[in-house]
Amino acid sequence: MNGQMSGNKKSKVFSKNKHVQELLRISGTLADVACAAGLLSWDQETYMPPKGAGARAKQLATLAGIYHDKATSSELGKLIRQAKPQNIYDKALVRERERAYRKETKLPKKLVEELSEATSRAFNIWQRAKKESDFSLFEKDLGGVLALSVQAAKLLQKKGQTIYDVMLDDYEHGLTEKEVERVFGEIKPKLTALSKRWSKTTAGADLKIANKGYEWQKQWDFGIRVIKDMGYDLDAGRQDTSAHPFTIGFGVGDVRITTWKNEQDLRPALFSTIHESGHALYEQGIDPRLERTILGNGTGLSMHESQSRLWENMVGKSEWFWEKYFPSLKSHFPSLKKVTSDEFVRAVNVVRPSLIRVEADEVTYGLHIIIRFEIERELVKGKIKTKDLPKIWNQKYKELLGVAPKNDREGVLQDVHWAHGSFGYFPTYLLGTMMAAQIFATAQKQIDVTNLKALREWLRVNIHRYGKVYTSSELLKRITGESLNPKYFVEYLQNKFNALYNFPQ
Amino acid sequence: MNGQMSGNKKSKVFSKNKHVQELLRISGTLADVACAAGLLSWDQETYMPPKGAGARAKQLATLAGIYHDKATSSELGKLIRQAKPQNIYDKALVRERERAYRKETKLPKKLVEELSEATSRAFNIWQRAKKESDFSLFEKDLGGVLALSVQAAKLLQKKGQTIYDVMLDDYEHGLTEKEVERVFGEIKPKLTALSKRWSKTTAGADLKIANKGYEWQKQWDFGIRVIKDMGYDLDAGRQDTSAHPFTIGFGVGDVRITTWKNEQDLRPALFSTIHESGHALYEQGIDPRLERTILGNGTGLSMHESQSRLWENMVGKSEWFWEKYFPSLKSHFPSLKKVTSDEFVRAVNVVRPSLIRVEADEVTYGLHIIIRFEIERELVKGKIKTKDLPKIWNQKYKELLGVAPKNDREGVLQDVHWAHGSFGYFPTYLLGTMMAAQIFATAQKQIDVTNLKALREWLRVNIHRYGKVYTSSELLKRITGESLNPKYFVEYLQNKFNALYNFPQ
Repeated sequence: MNGQMSGNKKSKVFSKNKHVQELLRISGTLADVACAAGLLSWDQETYMPPKGAGARAKQLATLAGIYHDKATSSELGKLIRQAKPQNIYDKALVRERERAYRKETKLPKKLVEELSEATSRAFNIWQRAKKESDFSLFEKDLGGVLALSVQAAKLLQKKGQTIYDVMLDDYEHGLTEKEVERVFGEIKPKLTALSKRWSKTTAGADLKIANKGYEWQKQWDFGIRVIKDMGYDLDAGRQDTSAHPFTIGFGVGDVRITTWKNEQDLRPALFSTIHESGHALYEQGIDPRLERTILGNGTGLSMHESQSRLWENMVGKSEWFWEKYFPSLKSHFPSLKKVTSDEFVRAVNVVRPSLIRVEADEVTYGLHIIIRFEIERELVKGKIKTKDLPKIWNQKYKELLGVAPKNDREGVLQDVHWAHGSFGYFPTYLLGTMMAAQIFATAQKQIDVTNLKALREWLRVNIHRYGKVYTSSELLKRITGESLNPKYFVEYLQNKFNALYNFPQ
Repeated sequence: MNGQMSGNKKSKVFSKNKHVQELLRISGTLADVACAAGLLSWDQETYMPPKGAGARAKQLATLAGIYHDKATSSELGKLIRQAKPQNIYDKALVRERERAYRKETKLPKKLVEELSEATSRAFNIWQRAKKESDFSLFEKDLGGVLALSVQAAKLLQKKGQTIYDVMLDDYEHGLTEKEVERVFGEIKPKLTALSKRWSKTTAGADLKIANKGYEWQKQWDFGIRVIKDMGYDLDAGRQDTSAHPFTIGFGVGDVRITTWKNEQDLRPALFSTIHESGHALYEQGIDPRLERTILGNGTGLSMHESQSRLWENMVGKSEWFWEKYFPSLKSHFPSLKKVTSDEFVRAVNVVRPSLIRVEADEVTYGLHIIIRFEIERELVKGKIKTKDLPKIWNQKYKELLGVAPKNDREGVLQDVHWAHGSFGYFPTYLLGTMMAAQIFATAQKQIDVTNLKALREWLRVNIHRYGKVYTSSELLKRITGESLNPKYFVEYLQNKFNALYNFPQ
């Protein structure tokens, strides 16, 4: 690690205040338990044999219970009140510990364990339901997870907060339903217009690369090469396959990503690999002195998503990126023999209203998120019933994107989030996407962003190393000088597509 | 699952005594924490990236500390005293819980955490030291682990027990240094004589199969086919590769094995796969109603080893086994084109005093164990210093086996056990090997052992399903009608080799 904050691994950033030190000791234990539970989850989604599911659910529930006990001890509560923060690190520590403490103490242990067991079971049922493309198999378990999630949110609700506010706050501190409505309200018509505008122009631009054969091992190797160039450290991480790509870290020295296999198209694995590496670079780039404290992970999920989206879209789908990488990609795959670099960049930037969120282009992606936001907001209010989800899902897709899922697998069952009880998570994807454009615009003014290592270092110094010391909105303001402004994303899209098709800007 | 004990998964084997029920609840939590730590260890030896080692050591130490706290609570102590066991299951539960409680309460939490962290670190250093074949890298950490292990044993020592007795008892309840000396004393001259006798006769019998090319994927597939035939359930387990093959279970539905890769010789992977599956069948065969109790694993390690050795040797190195499997094996590997089934069986039964324990034949294997026993017994007494280990190791090999390691990798660094702090573990390998012969002799009288599924079922009904309800020696006596008797192993070896070379018996 380079940079002022992490020049000397042995130096401490926290003060010697004895309550702060004691808070750090307890935080270390809590971080260890959380990492252990994290590894059990990672394994559950990568290597666990199917008959291990029942026992695994119990193990996760037990660890959640132990975490809860330790995170709600009166000793901890007292320490939080007594601590005298001496610097920004102390202050962030106490702030985050206090926030977590409030959340944990309001939830009875039984509920925490039930929720953990219910989501673990629901995940396994979701996998089967998705495989069999049958939402009815999953409905009951989803209903159980939803009811427990709402019950938990009610216990955490502050005056003036909606249930959904509470859920949003879990992923992005201070985020509200109203604010999401406002920002999404602003961007929705623009994305709809851009979608109509560019889906016509770009139609068919990927015919030469879609539905061909791409040998899996070569896809894997190429992806690994790209993420190494980005600076992803494979001695401090690894890639595996899973039903749904994700990133998970167990300290700065062990941040893992997963991808998924598709031999007909090289885009799903390639862009998920770049996307997850964007997340992983964030976690690998955190100041090691924050490890095993509550500050040793990325701050709110919007900022996290800004990192993955920045690498996936602003870098991985840019003309300059493929000028460099296309010759090598082409040499790996016979299917690309007759494709030029220009054609390839247009092919990975086709705007096409479609069914699967994680394969969506940059323009329509936001509409996928807006659909999920509009549904889950009503779901937690009880205005939408779980049994009606496939119908409503399909209607919304028809309305906003003009496409209709043929079955549950490509419809309401495509995402894992609700099985995990992660209501309020989806909005951070679009917020992060907008943040990415805003951050990238600043980076472009300060460095040569086509130098991947330099870009990674700029992100590390400006964002990654701070962990949770600053919140997403504080960081964004520090870096870009202003709050989240959707105009950067709209401008970015307009400029990009105009350039791709040589329209005057 | 079939069989009387597990016919109905929902029926309970334990009584409704409220203290027993409360003991089961606490046992469930403890089992979950142990399984979580187990998964962290599995991952550490299979997939963890190298830079994750430091944080992993801390995570394992924290889980060990949590386990220790829960296993030593005064609530648990009180319950053990109050419980009124109603049947054999209750009795075994209280017995095992009490035994564990005594051990756990005598060890201060700090020592438990130190030991966990020290062994975790030592494991990583051992991997590097082995790779670089340099014992000096490992010496200091081994010394640390040894000192902590001795310190722990001293705290557990009962009147009349040696330090090494305490260590043995950890792996096989009631086993003593004296008894090991007696049994090993009886078998040592016999193995030495057999080794001399048969190493001459069998010399060169594997020249046609050793040091050829065997494609790894085909080795893997063949191994998987064999263990499926044995009844290993791959929906309740999986195989991976690691530096040293091992078996680990997280409940009856998730019992994993590992093997190691060798493309020059097919024996190391094949026989380790069969060996570890023998262990895994034991764990997969335990009555599911014992899961998450302290009874839900195999009983003492000798009995566990008897299962792996029985499959590896009595089955996997027999003439009848290869009569069935050799044609298929041969069809996979060009190197075997000119080898007959008879030649192959002789080749996998070459008696050759050699350097690596896990690749040793059935005759000399015991001598490898006796060497380790003789060394570690003196090591814990302080009569051997860690710095002298390579020298003493090499001397013993020269004396007993007539061979001398050229370097530390093929000498003192070959086994992981001491890095894990597992002193007193090795003897169970030879005891288990002898038990296997005794059990197999009984099985041969009762069933057609060449029917692998029938053999597995016989073992399941007679041994596996009971978990820790009976101790190793109780089980052995129930099955065979007598205590451990080395004559069965000697007779088995004599008969086998006489038959292989058509000598009159």
